[in-house]
Amino acid sequence: MNTRRPLILITNDDGYQAKGINELVKCLRSLGEIVVFAPDGPRSGMGSAITSTLPIRYSLLKGEPGLKIYSCTGTPVDCVKLAINEILDAKPDLLFSGINHGGNQAICVNYSGTMGAATEGCIFGIPSVGVSLLDFSADADFSEACRLAYRLACQVLANGLPHGTFLNLNVPKSGQVKGVRVCRQAAGRWVKEFKRSEDAQGRPVFWLTGKFENEDPAHPENDTLALDDGYASLVPCKIDITDYAFLPELQRWNFE
Amino acid sequence: MNTRRPLILITNDDGYQAKGINELVKCLRSLGEIVVFAPDGPRSGMGSAITSTLPIRYSLLKGEPGLKIYSCTGTPVDCVKLAINEILDAKPDLLFSGINHGGNQAICVNYSGTMGAATEGCIFGIPSVGVSLLDFSADADFSEACRLAYRLACQVLANGLPHGTFLNLNVPKSGQVKGVRVCRQAAGRWVKEFKRSEDAQGRPVFWLTGKFENEDPAHPENDTLALDDGYASLVPCKIDITDYAFLPELQRWNFE
Repeated sequence: MNTRRPLILITNDDGYQAKGINELVKCLRSLGEIVVFAPDGPRSGMGSAITSTLPIRYSLLKGEPGLKIYSCTGTPVDCVKLAINEILDAKPDLLFSGINHGGNQAICVNYSGTMGAATEGCIFGIPSVGVSLLDFSADADFSEACRLAYRLACQVLANGLPHGTFLNLNVPKSGQVKGVRVCRQAAGRWVKEFKRSEDAQGRPVFWLTGKFENEDPAHPENDTLALDDGYASLVPCKIDITDYAFLPELQRWNFE
Repeated sequence: MNTRRPLILITNDDGYQAKGINELVKCLRSLGEIVVFAPDGPRSGMGSAITSTLPIRYSLLKGEPGLKIYSCTGTPVDCVKLAINEILDAKPDLLFSGINHGGNQAICVNYSGTMGAATEGCIFGIPSVGVSLLDFSADADFSEACRLAYRLACQVLANGLPHGTFLNLNVPKSGQVKGVRVCRQAAGRWVKEFKRSEDAQGRPVFWLTGKFENEDPAHPENDTLALDDGYASLVPCKIDITDYAFLPELQRWNFE
């Protein structure tokens, strides 16, 4: 009889104190042994950044049966790397990152520390999922997102994921979610990205802001549209970003 | 007669003072109007990180016919965003990022600030290329990398790139490069990633280090192997990371 419970690594980019990660821990706790290894404060927008010029530290904050919580001075990706290289005795059976305060649909997957951590788990061969709620508020209601995260965790533990594939789950802000729509990453980009302001000496400074523009609003199978329609979006993502379709044409270019 | 010369945006992640970006500017200068908009210091390993909680500043360091140089307090992606949103009157015809001091082959594309900037250019619809030399030294010899970057720039200006596709060029460290091999991103990951050390008080600290392990060493069409064989590697990359092959299976999962 195999009595070992699944080992589940949980991290995020909002820091270990955020409501989203604590709600996630509560909802996944019945599924296995939980190790939280998360940044010691907010790391939003860190993508897959790593800390290469400074030393990284971590602390054990809490250890009880079935749950250990560590905080770390690094980025979300540093957290995953450090937990796997230095802390865990075995490779986790599952990695969950989140639940993020704010959506990571469409091209946001590229900038998101939440998704950076999920990408990193995938690189290590761990079935990995990022979960985000389209609500930035500190006391957001995570009940629907937790319900879906739990079901998704059960499915991933049961079915596994292909090598090199990870999942991006986004959940609409409020009210009853109509269901889960499995779809692709919307094409699009952010526009009007800076607010010009000035410092105490009157010198210009720029704050990142902006608005997402969906380039393909009519395509029903993209995540942004699914969310607009009241569905949670689930996008399977790859760590191999090679454009195989363009390879043959590029091979005909002349480099001599 | 169209007399407008191409507008070329150049950035990097080693900072505007690095030898690699200055050599790149020299070698591309004959092809168009150059605007350098680069970090004010090293930003290695920043991936596609953005600065969302601090204001960003920039300074014009040099303005002469055909060449403007700006430095910026942000990440490589911030540089691209700020240049396009606030500085440039027209969309660049070409973006080059680099030449990086150090390789960005295989999964390094995921952590690289050089490639983060190229990704961002692609998101804006600009034909974008990251160039890296497999030599970390400050006074590396960039002559072969420049020769290849120039030829690639000519080809991209002539042929364009598909929407959503950007290029990752890596050049071996020393000696004569045998040619350019158009190939895919090698599968693999870094191992033994931390050096444990201690601070002045004897507390443990961790420095990121490690060694790349190619998971597919026998496959001739991957970038790591091409570089090992003495070729420059050129990988076409996509901003849409959706795993289309896995979509149908994921759609059969049960989320109820």
